[in-house]
Amino acid sequence: MEPSRHMTSQQFRDAGKRLIDWIADYYERVERYPVLAQVVPGQIRQSLPPDPPQSGEKFDAILASVNAKIMPGVTHWQSPNFFAYFPANTSEPSVLGDLLSTGLGVQGMLWATSPACTELETLVLDWLAKMLALPEAFLSSGKGGGVIQDSASSSSLCAVLAARERATGFRSNEDGCRDELVAYTSTQAHSSIEKDVKVAGIGRRNLRLIDVDSNFAMRPDLLEKAIEEDKHAGKIPFIVCATIGTTSSLALDPLESIGGICKKHNLWMHVDAAMAGTAALCPEFRHIQQGLELADSYCFDAHKWMFTNFDCSCFYVADRETLTRSLDVLPEYLRNQASGSDAVFEYRNWHVPLGRRFRALKLWFVIQHYGVEGLQWLIRRHVELAQTFLRWVRDDQRFELIAPAALNLICFRLKASDELNEKLLRRLNHSGKLYLSHTRLNGKYTIRFCVAQTKTELPHIQRAWDAIRTEADALVGSSQP
Amino acid sequence: MEPSRHMTSQQFRDAGKRLIDWIADYYERVERYPVLAQVVPGQIRQSLPPDPPQSGEKFDAILASVNAKIMPGVTHWQSPNFFAYFPANTSEPSVLGDLLSTGLGVQGMLWATSPACTELETLVLDWLAKMLALPEAFLSSGKGGGVIQDSASSSSLCAVLAARERATGFRSNEDGCRDELVAYTSTQAHSSIEKDVKVAGIGRRNLRLIDVDSNFAMRPDLLEKAIEEDKHAGKIPFIVCATIGTTSSLALDPLESIGGICKKHNLWMHVDAAMAGTAALCPEFRHIQQGLELADSYCFDAHKWMFTNFDCSCFYVADRETLTRSLDVLPEYLRNQASGSDAVFEYRNWHVPLGRRFRALKLWFVIQHYGVEGLQWLIRRHVELAQTFLRWVRDDQRFELIAPAALNLICFRLKASDELNEKLLRRLNHSGKLYLSHTRLNGKYTIRFCVAQTKTELPHIQRAWDAIRTEADALVGSSQP
Repeated sequence: MEPSRHMTSQQFRDAGKRLIDWIADYYERVERYPVLAQVVPGQIRQSLPPDPPQSGEKFDAILASVNAKIMPGVTHWQSPNFFAYFPANTSEPSVLGDLLSTGLGVQGMLWATSPACTELETLVLDWLAKMLALPEAFLSSGKGGGVIQDSASSSSLCAVLAARERATGFRSNEDGCRDELVAYTSTQAHSSIEKDVKVAGIGRRNLRLIDVDSNFAMRPDLLEKAIEEDKHAGKIPFIVCATIGTTSSLALDPLESIGGICKKHNLWMHVDAAMAGTAALCPEFRHIQQGLELADSYCFDAHKWMFTNFDCSCFYVADRETLTRSLDVLPEYLRNQASGSDAVFEYRNWHVPLGRRFRALKLWFVIQHYGVEGLQWLIRRHVELAQTFLRWVRDDQRFELIAPAALNLICFRLKASDELNEKLLRRLNHSGKLYLSHTRLNGKYTIRFCVAQTKTELPHIQRAWDAIRTEADALVGSSQP
Repeated sequence: MEPSRHMTSQQFRDAGKRLIDWIADYYERVERYPVLAQVVPGQIRQSLPPDPPQSGEKFDAILASVNAKIMPGVTHWQSPNFFAYFPANTSEPSVLGDLLSTGLGVQGMLWATSPACTELETLVLDWLAKMLALPEAFLSSGKGGGVIQDSASSSSLCAVLAARERATGFRSNEDGCRDELVAYTSTQAHSSIEKDVKVAGIGRRNLRLIDVDSNFAMRPDLLEKAIEEDKHAGKIPFIVCATIGTTSSLALDPLESIGGICKKHNLWMHVDAAMAGTAALCPEFRHIQQGLELADSYCFDAHKWMFTNFDCSCFYVADRETLTRSLDVLPEYLRNQASGSDAVFEYRNWHVPLGRRFRALKLWFVIQHYGVEGLQWLIRRHVELAQTFLRWVRDDQRFELIAPAALNLICFRLKASDELNEKLLRRLNHSGKLYLSHTRLNGKYTIRFCVAQTKTELPHIQRAWDAIRTEADALVGSSQP
């Protein structure tokens, strides 16, 4: 008999423990790397063999390749000096929960194919709904419930699909999307909404981007006007995607007004709270979701600001039957006793993919490790740090603030040309000391500073501000105190 | 200053190493568990606290909950006695590669946000294309390339969307799906194709399920007839989804004939080789993909039969520009120097989600650990075991084979009523000794026996056959040798 090609149990134990130490070392040393990878296109690929190895390699050699070839091309999302985009923060308990999921290797496509995968997910999403004080309609004990999706893009796609089917009496699934359906969101909404309406066969032309007020929040008066115009033109308004915390500036759409309009005109209201939703862990920030009880669906990403590694987008619906009827297909090879009984959730009907990982474990590990009050403490700390940074920007007359900054995202710029602001950002990012990103608000190039990395503390904010001031000195001269 | 809420580095090292040992122990003992979880709906959930903990818990307590509360609800996909559905096999190097991905926690939504995440993915999918002898058109060096998606369902959705846009000159994205597009697949194709056409706004009524021959393969004559009828009726045929290895019976659609028809009528040909595609690692099995050079897109799941844990669906296109143009949206906050340069792949335009994990690592670890010849050896072994099982079934006159079984899936049934076959399956699965699933072929309830679990060896097949014969003895009496 030929020798096994697999790692022995002992080899796996040794390699696994080395890798755990490698990750612990990485977290200890992450600040030594430039936050943004300093490589040019093609550099990483060219450093690797163009062809696969014919015979197997030892784990030592594989790990050596990681160090030598892969690490130079990594942008360090887990660095406490990462302030770009929205974060993808993780934590030690999340890493462990996900490792357990990987190790178990279950495929939760049906309740029967791993009941714990389905039931823990439903439970933990109920826990979360309570932790965030979400409307009761989203709890699984009633007609609603939550599910983990890979991303807010996929969550909002499912909202669009369920809304499309509700509006057409499930005819779009049968006949194709033949009606003149119209979707609404604000000019500040995430680009995934545009992607979703394209995917769903609605068409970009049938997505209205409603203008915003001076705080970058959707204007309900313009929304209602647009809906009425479309109705008048014989079209069928079917969904409004509102945002709690837009990507550009963390603007808060007025859910109560928008929800009222949706009820009046019988539109689905989806609420995307991708990053900011996590803030509702703290009672003092729950004003951001006022009016959420009018929503048909809601999503926020635990993989952004809740210390849970990607992917973990939490998607809730108030009426799960509409969602599952919109996505259900049941071939013979997936039939089983339990799924016929209505006693179980079949999450394959809650999203596009059939297969699914045991993603609830990492979320469950995170909530158990930190407890509700631990998570609240961390979120408060982030907001406090961001507000400290905000005061520094405000006190330096070379800079201007471009948007309200009630939570953890500060939008600012040099009072100077777009070109100089771009230059400032490029220099900072290329220094490797920190990583920031930009957007455009009121037509102006704007720098975004988002405080949400797991290990970010006051010294990181201070050093970031020092670096920004130093570059500003070089670009526009020192500030007059 | 309050104490940190995070695990210390040392706590993480200790907990991580315990978990590695836990996983190694699990793999050593996995056969002691019943393969199919023996719980009733609600049982797992009810064993857990209805509300989240206010304060944090120790890792010991969390792991104890896993053992006591979660494990009874786990169906053991990694058991060598798992023969149901298609497998989701994993391996030690895959677990380690995925752990590294989790630890790094990078978000590869743009090339710039982790160049190694994008470039390793392109490289490893090129490696794979060479390992499987896929057509050159799918290599990134030309106009094509590969990307990792979460599932074959999502891969085929992207094929449907790209085909929809190509057929309508990218007007569906703009105006909505207004044309009478028609898609084609066989009656044996995976249910995800139906889901995809619904999602994409095509409508189930516009999906033709083409009948199959006695081997359950799509009949090209009927396909062409259907296309011509639809054209004649003023409709626009736009895609054929062919299958290499259908879910029910591993039937092989005749790609050469179907591809010829697609070329003639200008249809997109997508090929779904979800499980069976892996067999092409071995030259002697490459006949299954004869004609693949006529395909516009192709997918197979490394997370099924290639020892790589879910999710890892490998999706290839011959013309990446059509795909990315179909899925591209570019808001200001995602703009960056590299993405404007055409020098890099932006994988966010290759699928629906924006965010993406560093999934190439696990695949790269697997290929490096086993090497090409190690993987070939394992695949050959699985096919050999399945063929051994096939001979046993054939030699027992109480059973009949229901489909050709050229690879690793055996479809059989007792020469008895559907009810008795159902009873046989139920008894076997409830014994916990093994896990099988069923389908319906030619209207008959059929048992599926799929050999593809990482550690399945001859004794497992022997014990499975013993268990099947013993139950058959009880149900229909012993066989006459």
